[in-house]
Amino acid sequence: VGVSDKLANAGKGFLDTQKTMGFKGKLYAINPKSKIEGFDTYPSLRDIPGPVDHVIIAVPASAVPSVIEDCVRKGVRSAAIFTSGFREWNTEEGQAVEDQIARMARKRGIRLLGPNCMGFFCPETGLGFRSDMPATKGGKISLISQSGGIFNSLGFMANEKGTPLAKAVSYGNECDLGPAELLLYLAEDPATEVICLYIEGTRDGNALRDALSFAVSRKPVLVLKGGRSTSGSRAVQSHTGSLSGSSQTWESLCRQSGAVLVEDLEEMMDTARLLLLAPRPKNRNTVLMSISGGFSVLFTDILANADFAVPELSPEAQQDLYKIIHYPGTSIRKPLDLAQSFFYIKKFPLLFKRLGEEDDMGIYIMVLVMEYLTLDGEGGAKIGMLILNALIQAFKKVDKTLVVVFPESTESEARLGMIKHITESGYPVFDSMKRCAIALNNVIQDYEVRI
Amino acid sequence: VGVSDKLANAGKGFLDTQKTMGFKGKLYAINPKSKIEGFDTYPSLRDIPGPVDHVIIAVPASAVPSVIEDCVRKGVRSAAIFTSGFREWNTEEGQAVEDQIARMARKRGIRLLGPNCMGFFCPETGLGFRSDMPATKGGKISLISQSGGIFNSLGFMANEKGTPLAKAVSYGNECDLGPAELLLYLAEDPATEVICLYIEGTRDGNALRDALSFAVSRKPVLVLKGGRSTSGSRAVQSHTGSLSGSSQTWESLCRQSGAVLVEDLEEMMDTARLLLLAPRPKNRNTVLMSISGGFSVLFTDILANADFAVPELSPEAQQDLYKIIHYPGTSIRKPLDLAQSFFYIKKFPLLFKRLGEEDDMGIYIMVLVMEYLTLDGEGGAKIGMLILNALIQAFKKVDKTLVVVFPESTESEARLGMIKHITESGYPVFDSMKRCAIALNNVIQDYEVRI
Repeated sequence: VGVSDKLANAGKGFLDTQKTMGFKGKLYAINPKSKIEGFDTYPSLRDIPGPVDHVIIAVPASAVPSVIEDCVRKGVRSAAIFTSGFREWNTEEGQAVEDQIARMARKRGIRLLGPNCMGFFCPETGLGFRSDMPATKGGKISLISQSGGIFNSLGFMANEKGTPLAKAVSYGNECDLGPAELLLYLAEDPATEVICLYIEGTRDGNALRDALSFAVSRKPVLVLKGGRSTSGSRAVQSHTGSLSGSSQTWESLCRQSGAVLVEDLEEMMDTARLLLLAPRPKNRNTVLMSISGGFSVLFTDILANADFAVPELSPEAQQDLYKIIHYPGTSIRKPLDLAQSFFYIKKFPLLFKRLGEEDDMGIYIMVLVMEYLTLDGEGGAKIGMLILNALIQAFKKVDKTLVVVFPESTESEARLGMIKHITESGYPVFDSMKRCAIALNNVIQDYEVRI
Repeated sequence: VGVSDKLANAGKGFLDTQKTMGFKGKLYAINPKSKIEGFDTYPSLRDIPGPVDHVIIAVPASAVPSVIEDCVRKGVRSAAIFTSGFREWNTEEGQAVEDQIARMARKRGIRLLGPNCMGFFCPETGLGFRSDMPATKGGKISLISQSGGIFNSLGFMANEKGTPLAKAVSYGNECDLGPAELLLYLAEDPATEVICLYIEGTRDGNALRDALSFAVSRKPVLVLKGGRSTSGSRAVQSHTGSLSGSSQTWESLCRQSGAVLVEDLEEMMDTARLLLLAPRPKNRNTVLMSISGGFSVLFTDILANADFAVPELSPEAQQDLYKIIHYPGTSIRKPLDLAQSFFYIKKFPLLFKRLGEEDDMGIYIMVLVMEYLTLDGEGGAKIGMLILNALIQAFKKVDKTLVVVFPESTESEARLGMIKHITESGYPVFDSMKRCAIALNNVIQDYEVRI
């Protein structure tokens, strides 16, 4: 509702997006004056001949109540209100209209999402809210976001990294449907394996706590809280009009419920990917594999600083490995520095099999700096893919937590392509050891609570 | 010395690289048996007819002393020893040969770099040690690195981000030339504006402290210390054979000398770029500009957490801005959320001019999420570049610290291209607000010490 042929009309954008996303149901445009090209157009909701399941509202704030009235009369069960200009504007008028529609939701049996929200994203059923967001199916991470912009970023990021979103909801001002009910839904949704929540504040802290606890009993829940600082919470007021609560409140809420509190989007994405792609770390003993002594040193520090151990391999393992990869520069005693052995791909299966047999080791981290090979043209790119595929095959010999750190350097398309290839082959990749260590700690925290 | 036509011969690689780098002087290959295609080849150093300035040694460890003997007799002033297998192997033999060549350096008047090092990189004069490293001229960041691998990564990273290296030295085991003397040189090198030091340990802590203090009196010095943790310091032993010292020792060394201690390569690069490209932050009051309310909230938190303030703009500024950019969604009171105003590029000059006039504000951070525009094909890419160029032009109206945060999302080539374009236009870009805040704090620390 609120569709016109004007440039950048939001309502038209929503309709077009459902088409792009492959929505199978009927789509109607509501415009009191003119027919919208490509859509069955009616002057009002009540003029639509058949039943209507869901309405997207994109009319000015003052007109929203009457559209909801139409929804109720038409028997519509749910509506998402894109329109902004309510509580978040901090005006009496905005507050009054939001109170009015909230009352309608409670009394008239319709469920409302928003206002000031982007609505639902679900590639399986073809629902979405921006036409350029890839509608990749088969995702396993679901997102509940109070902010539409945060959804956009996480959606693109998740897709680019090879672990797309299953479902997402941008819920804005929470005049009716809020994070608690959405959490309860995703907790039981079979397609969702990890739940991410971006939240700025909520109207019902008790309901949220209970929902978080229930969801955590079913699957990992990662929480990113916007507005922890005083100035951040002022920013929240004008963004979604929420009362954001103190930082301590949110920390204890997460601690009590077992949800993992993260600090930024990158950490959220990294942790979700690790939860999806790797088995539970058996312990904190780490085998660090690299092709650069300097990285071995630096990354050992970062791991130690994050409470992981990088112990020497057992004398037996050192002897066995010496037989397998005794090539120039290779160092076996300390963090494994493959050096030239990195190019003897036929040795990889033996190497990883023997490494995997070290019972005391719980985590295997392969540091890759190899996109430079593509600087050598097609030949180099070919060698790069050969090595990468041999590595991925050999990884399978290790039946424990195995992750890849692929730090930025040339940052070429080559590196991104390699990262996506590794992720799609089932191994999580991180852009830096710092981020890897943070995600590992989050995952261990989650497993300790849930299992 | 130690050049053959065998595949992957290191000596040949070094010679080829000088050619690729455009070295103007004479290049000789030493091979006792056969002529090396493309190079004047002699059986030994002493057979070369003219004078020789510098020798790169890539023969087995046991043969290194006799090559140095040849160097001395030939009157060579300096040599870089690529060969490994010395102190870092922790064998009596390796230790003995390293002691022997160190004595030769002290007594015979030749200066040695290494062993176990990659040598010198200097695009201005055409020196280098890997042929695929871009030899971009005009760099202003110089690097002293105990590790060759760390140099490689930082070299590529610096180039990709649009702020290439001026000079770099990989010095390995420090049998003679070490970080202290190299620091003293770069402190007075007019091409070098920021010095980066990657160090695992040193033989002469006093000399290093004095050199650091002197260098800091001339320009910013960033120190990345490998081997701060116990296991990291074990890794150091087998990497460069250094005694790495306690974490506290290094912290106090940096504090006393005024050098900035960083935690990883990304932080080093971010900080160097910020030092190069932005004026000193006047204070910690930050104007945060974004096109997403969610990012405004999250990034305000991250800034507050790092001790920056994100105050409201003055009432006068709010009034003035309201007149300039009153478009849907735009919020002026809190962190500036441009929303749709982001597409009114003609307003940018007025907008940034008025923002820059806020006397109490010291730091301006523009958050960009715009590479998604290119998903719309060529038209979108064109719009993206139009907006980006208008922004960069308008940035000039702000005569204070102005930086860009361009968080990962679609991570396409488009984003990297935009980042490079902004950097080359003279504004530092960061991949995340967390990294931006860390770099800002480092830069403030540096200015407080040096000015």
